[in-house]
Amino acid sequence: MPRKICISVIGSGNGDVLSPKIAKIANEVGREIAMRGAVLICGGLGGVMAEAAKGAKENGGLTIGILPGEDPGSANPFIDITLPTGLGFARNVLVAYSGDAIIAVSGSLGTLSEISYALLKKKPVIGIHSWNLEQLSGRMPSFEGQVYSDGIIRCESAKDAVDKAFAIIENIENC
Amino acid sequence: MPRKICISVIGSGNGDVLSPKIAKIANEVGREIAMRGAVLICGGLGGVMAEAAKGAKENGGLTIGILPGEDPGSANPFIDITLPTGLGFARNVLVAYSGDAIIAVSGSLGTLSEISYALLKKKPVIGIHSWNLEQLSGRMPSFEGQVYSDGIIRCESAKDAVDKAFAIIENIENC
Amino acid sequence: MPRKICISVIGSGNGDVLSPKIAKIANEVGREIAMRGAVLICGGLGGVMAEAAKGAKENGGLTIGILPGEDPGSANPFIDITLPTGLGFARNVLVAYSGDAIIAVSGSLGTLSEISYALLKKKPVIGIHSWNLEQLSGRMPSFEGQVYSDGIIRCESAKDAVDKAFAIIENIENC
Amino acid sequence: MPRKICISVIGSGNGDVLSPKIAKIANEVGREIAMRGAVLICGGLGGVMAEAAKGAKENGGLTIGILPGEDPGSANPFIDITLPTGLGFARNVLVAYSGDAIIAVSGSLGTLSEISYALLKKKPVIGIHSWNLEQLSGRMPSFEGQVYSDGIIRCESAKDAVDKAFAIIENIENC
Repeated sequence: MPRKICISVIGSGNGDVLSPKIAKIANEVGREIAMRGAVLICGGLGGVMAEAAKGAKENGGLTIGILPGEDPGSANPFIDITLPTGLGFARNVLVAYSGDAIIAVSGSLGTLSEISYALLKKKPVIGIHSWNLEQLSGRMPSFEGQVYSDGIIRCESAKDAVDKAFAIIENIENC
Repeated sequence: MPRKICISVIGSGNGDVLSPKIAKIANEVGREIAMRGAVLICGGLGGVMAEAAKGAKENGGLTIGILPGEDPGSANPFIDITLPTGLGFARNVLVAYSGDAIIAVSGSLGTLSEISYALLKKKPVIGIHSWNLEQLSGRMPSFEGQVYSDGIIRCESAKDAVDKAFAIIENIENC
Repeated sequence: MPRKICISVIGSGNGDVLSPKIAKIANEVGREIAMRGAVLICGGLGGVMAEAAKGAKENGGLTIGILPGEDPGSANPFIDITLPTGLGFARNVLVAYSGDAIIAVSGSLGTLSEISYALLKKKPVIGIHSWNLEQLSGRMPSFEGQVYSDGIIRCESAKDAVDKAFAIIENIENC
Repeated sequence: MPRKICISVIGSGNGDVLSPKIAKIANEVGREIAMRGAVLICGGLGGVMAEAAKGAKENGGLTIGILPGEDPGSANPFIDITLPTGLGFARNVLVAYSGDAIIAVSGSLGTLSEISYALLKKKPVIGIHSWNLEQLSGRMPSFEGQVYSDGIIRCESAKDAVDKAFAIIENIENC
């Protein structure tokens, strides 16, 4: 069976607000994915998506961009295969579903929607300086009396995040 | 111009985990929307969606269910107009976009995706015992040094939530 | 059960190329739907969609526009309830799925995609001066040796089309 | 710029009704795409999609399946990269948009929706024993008095189809 392992990398598409620290982590995540022979999937735009795709391309990886618009030309220059969906933000669902694991690097509201979708689909989600849904528990009656675990695996480094993603994927495939 | 005011009500579709308190609030939200002559939009399933639609129907309102599946019969019995999308969770985008304001009653991950989408689109979001994204500020590098305001208007009662939704909508339309 | 009967009206969104004859038929289709108390669903834009919605509004009907864009303001002025999907042409699926029957008035490629979807979902499709897929049979090896019936009910007048739509819907509901 | 040329192959997903002739052509289309170093995109299911993907894999190609469901396991065994969209038939839009050219091998209603979308987006469409929309001209009032050209390039052989697809793509890229 030829099916390749795919990792979705999510985070802000706005390169202007990207701190050098977050940009470096995104690049390293892309590199680590490529070095393990997996396919990097992202939303195809700038910011974290472009940095991660750049990191993958610099290390011989294959990159896919699931674009919100209809124009393949809107992809960042490190995308091998563009999927121009024309679905707008609804394409976030596809980014979340297409990875065997999802790695969130920081991120804002779009990233939060993708994390929500990935958790709804019981996908492994690894977060680096990203959303922590557990902090939100305790306030909502629906979680009353429960310790809510969001299931997100929190990491500090890109290498640790990609290691953990692969460990989980291998564990799932061996079941 | 005939365009009707639409309010999207979001929250858990799982009636089994719904506390009587949350069910009552959802029903009252539906009632308050109907009493003001607005259209209630929801995801068409059970739980908060069914309670809100029931509250609207008991008070002469009009209800629309934007369903994840392809079968109109999957709607709760309080839906006047079913939109069976077949889009799965991607239909959450449509629920978020279709309201002039969005009222979240508690809710879990699906609700969180809808809140994310509504905020991305700069829609007014009113939360009753629902997600609070501000608690996360200061922890994420992307928000470092900022006081992050999630823009969600928090209310305790259904009447207050619907009042605030209408006040904002009228304010937008007068601009 | 409050569920209302919905009829989707499809056809070209380009008012500039609409002949007076087709515009008149579209308007009459809208009128006939409204006079039977059903909801008119369309793609919310101009051309056939606007004429049909106008015909419905002039006769006290309720109209829904499932828009390709994210801006409710892109709807024609005869739409009561706008659903701004942001899905682009993918919203055609929703127009096809949301009607208990679909009435095509002339139309071009977008209409053809909607007819395809409606037939895939075994929806009743009524065509007035619209696509005839049967003419295409005989040439394709997949239909070799078969008389291909496209299942589209062809009508000449708006009244006949809406009558037939309702007859089929009642027949389905009585099964 | 690393962007790879992608060709979408569309046709019936039902292997049971596939004639040996059509299966052979689909396989050859996949082979010809792979031999030119392009990526084969399809809907990921059986029938023409599986035959084309098989032909590509047997010749060292890369294959992507844009699946209607949420389960990567629903892909045929010749798919390298699965995109489980959960969008149902709405995923047909993505198949149509993702190819630099679209090759239709016979096909039924789903294929017709994809051809409609591809033509709407002004994508090059090559048909082998597939739908011919020109036969309808002259009958529909919207085309009255016009010779309607559907823009589909008709070929008899897989090699000719893929040759023509590449000639058009190169021509577009040189503009």
